[in-house]
Amino acid sequence: MAKEKKIKPSKDLPLGFIDRQEKELLIRDFVISNIKEVMIKYGFQYLETPSFEYTESIGKFLPDKDRPGEGVFSFKDENKWLSLRYDLTAPLARYVAKNYLEIPKPFKRYQLGTVWRNEKPGPGRYREFLQFDADYVGTKNLQADAELCILISEVLEKCGLTKNDYTVKISSRNFTKEIFNELKINSSEQASIAIRALDKIDRLGWEEVKKLLGKGRKDKSGDFTKGANLDQKQIDLLGEKIKTKNPENEDILEIIKIFESYNFTNFKFDPSLIRGLEYYTGPIFEVNLNFDIKNLKGQTIQFGSIGGGGRYDNLVSNFGNFDCPATGISIGLDRLVFALMQKKDFRIKVQRPVIICVFDKNKLKEYIQILSKLRDSNISCEIYPGEGKLKKQMEYANKIGAPAVILYGDDEIKSGKVTLKNLDTGNESSIQIEDLSNEIKKLI
Amino acid sequence: MAKEKKIKPSKDLPLGFIDRQEKELLIRDFVISNIKEVMIKYGFQYLETPSFEYTESIGKFLPDKDRPGEGVFSFKDENKWLSLRYDLTAPLARYVAKNYLEIPKPFKRYQLGTVWRNEKPGPGRYREFLQFDADYVGTKNLQADAELCILISEVLEKCGLTKNDYTVKISSRNFTKEIFNELKINSSEQASIAIRALDKIDRLGWEEVKKLLGKGRKDKSGDFTKGANLDQKQIDLLGEKIKTKNPENEDILEIIKIFESYNFTNFKFDPSLIRGLEYYTGPIFEVNLNFDIKNLKGQTIQFGSIGGGGRYDNLVSNFGNFDCPATGISIGLDRLVFALMQKKDFRIKVQRPVIICVFDKNKLKEYIQILSKLRDSNISCEIYPGEGKLKKQMEYANKIGAPAVILYGDDEIKSGKVTLKNLDTGNESSIQIEDLSNEIKKLI
Repeated sequence: MAKEKKIKPSKDLPLGFIDRQEKELLIRDFVISNIKEVMIKYGFQYLETPSFEYTESIGKFLPDKDRPGEGVFSFKDENKWLSLRYDLTAPLARYVAKNYLEIPKPFKRYQLGTVWRNEKPGPGRYREFLQFDADYVGTKNLQADAELCILISEVLEKCGLTKNDYTVKISSRNFTKEIFNELKINSSEQASIAIRALDKIDRLGWEEVKKLLGKGRKDKSGDFTKGANLDQKQIDLLGEKIKTKNPENEDILEIIKIFESYNFTNFKFDPSLIRGLEYYTGPIFEVNLNFDIKNLKGQTIQFGSIGGGGRYDNLVSNFGNFDCPATGISIGLDRLVFALMQKKDFRIKVQRPVIICVFDKNKLKEYIQILSKLRDSNISCEIYPGEGKLKKQMEYANKIGAPAVILYGDDEIKSGKVTLKNLDTGNESSIQIEDLSNEIKKLI
Repeated sequence: MAKEKKIKPSKDLPLGFIDRQEKELLIRDFVISNIKEVMIKYGFQYLETPSFEYTESIGKFLPDKDRPGEGVFSFKDENKWLSLRYDLTAPLARYVAKNYLEIPKPFKRYQLGTVWRNEKPGPGRYREFLQFDADYVGTKNLQADAELCILISEVLEKCGLTKNDYTVKISSRNFTKEIFNELKINSSEQASIAIRALDKIDRLGWEEVKKLLGKGRKDKSGDFTKGANLDQKQIDLLGEKIKTKNPENEDILEIIKIFESYNFTNFKFDPSLIRGLEYYTGPIFEVNLNFDIKNLKGQTIQFGSIGGGGRYDNLVSNFGNFDCPATGISIGLDRLVFALMQKKDFRIKVQRPVIICVFDKNKLKEYIQILSKLRDSNISCEIYPGEGKLKKQMEYANKIGAPAVILYGDDEIKSGKVTLKNLDTGNESSIQIEDLSNEIKKLI
């Protein structure tokens, strides 16, 4: 028998999951605080639903119907299946149905939360991400749809983007349906396959989408996706229609009129806009960034949208006899932060502590006196938290990006002064303890 | 065949999960912003690990070893099992092992994140909760352990608690081990059963814990838990030892000395303190609240701690040949917020919007002009977002707690003034549009 070795657990992360570092998190905090300010101003309530829902409560509205039953993390719990939410809309519909009698009508809520997709991970394609959602529930009023586009723009501009940096694309599911009627696409299955096909124009291009509108398409891996089986004439006509410049649709015209009243101009009618979800029933919108974004390899990529949404008047009524028209928008915060990190220097300074070096363990009390004085002045600082000689301590200070170190050895203790070494310039100065806070504040 | 009925999905939440409302979320935001300020001041880095880890990477350190293999939400992923993290410490150990060459040493990081426990839910016992963790990794220095207790105190006092409201209890796993040696408890199985038994004193009382130290205990449901099989003499001696007032242990004495240098007095040596986790190797601490807390039924309850931690010098070395002593503290934020909501009036005002009533849909443009003016002055407001008569609009305004409504009908439009109705007092006043922002600011 071979000698048994202690098996070490994996140090790796499962594919599709990542660790996030301080700079990204601080920019995300900045975006979130802007979102919260805008949400208060626009009169939205803050709500948080849990990570898990009964699978049956959210299971029907999966964005990717090509693979029913897949796409979510599910878990058998005694008799029923639970799933991690894959978006914040389905849980909102459940919340509204559960609390229908208590909530104000209309009900405006926003939520920030992680969502999970049990999909094949790939470069830049994660299996959990942070979303921001704002929804109006219980109103057919198209002003709601218009305001969603406007409030997102306000968030983006608060984050430092200019009007040239982003566009809100709008269309309406009714506009698409009207085209389908003209084309005499009557079967709902054909219509839904066609909608999913059209949604892929940005990613695949029109030539590939044509295959999906026709008999079907084999992708690079050899997988075959069944097409909508439209005939050549239908496909050609569809191709023309989604290039039109005139939004001959009531919803869209009304929203554009409302935009004008708000002096909101940073939108574009895009007849090829589809948004993949089947439950949309009216206006749809999408937020696109217009500046170059690079992937982790430094290649400029087709970044796609950072979010979007639309009207879903029938979703809540899945839970019962509720007349509950609604409209909402979702933004992918991790993607937005990824883009923002490339766009602007946010001047979000990562504050690193000043290090008080340890010369003599028996002088800890003296070091703590200085530490407490500085922290009382709200200065980020620490006594070197490990063990080791001055050289090791300086290496540590440089590694963490400390702005300065404080040297307080025997000579300094005798003279009642400390030596402050600026790690940027290398300059050392001898400073009275009572002046130390001010000197450090000048330096950072 | 019976007529098929469309089956409606459940509107309920799975047991152990809840929706959280605005007031709780705002107080939580307040606590989190205090935590972040203190963390920067103390020189900790902000890190975020993902929700999922390989089960093998975190599976060994479950707090409740009575039920190995249970306690986590796990999913099979191609070949390997993934689990939702059940705490933030095991993922930190994995992170440190994965990034050992890159991280500064020592490494101080903090994290805020949801953790999941697949346990039997009960009243006030949830299956997901938000944790805050701060850890020092790569140092044996007991100053680290001391600072964790101090920084938590600073967070609590920033949140409005006074020194009378909380106590930090300290002890050391070594103190307990020394007692075990005296008692000649040599088997490590006996020792770990005894540790888990002692951890239950607060919940079960000494009489029940005695059974767990002896042959075992049958709980109310009839389930039998095997005991540590100590004899009566050992149990009696143990009972005495955990009442001692003298911390005759090097770790504890040193930490108390460091506390003195920081002028930190709000701690208490508690020889009965155990903390359930098996991986602790040195000082342990626990944060307890001293004021009355009621459950959702209004009954005053034994609330238990809001968090704690300790030194775990061997955890990282599970991943390989790392010499990586560490210490950390975890706080359960939902529990802390639950308690804070009862303790203090936070004066966290839930800001609700002023409502601009809709008299005539064709005057939307005029309403939007007022809306934009107010929002430009950073006033929370909205045009009534639904459809319906004035009565319905007033009901909505009252329901959401709007401070005021703005009436801008034909008369008002003619006169160039608006009517502002204070919903607190019922007073109406006629106001020039240019004065409206200031009047509203006085009112809210």
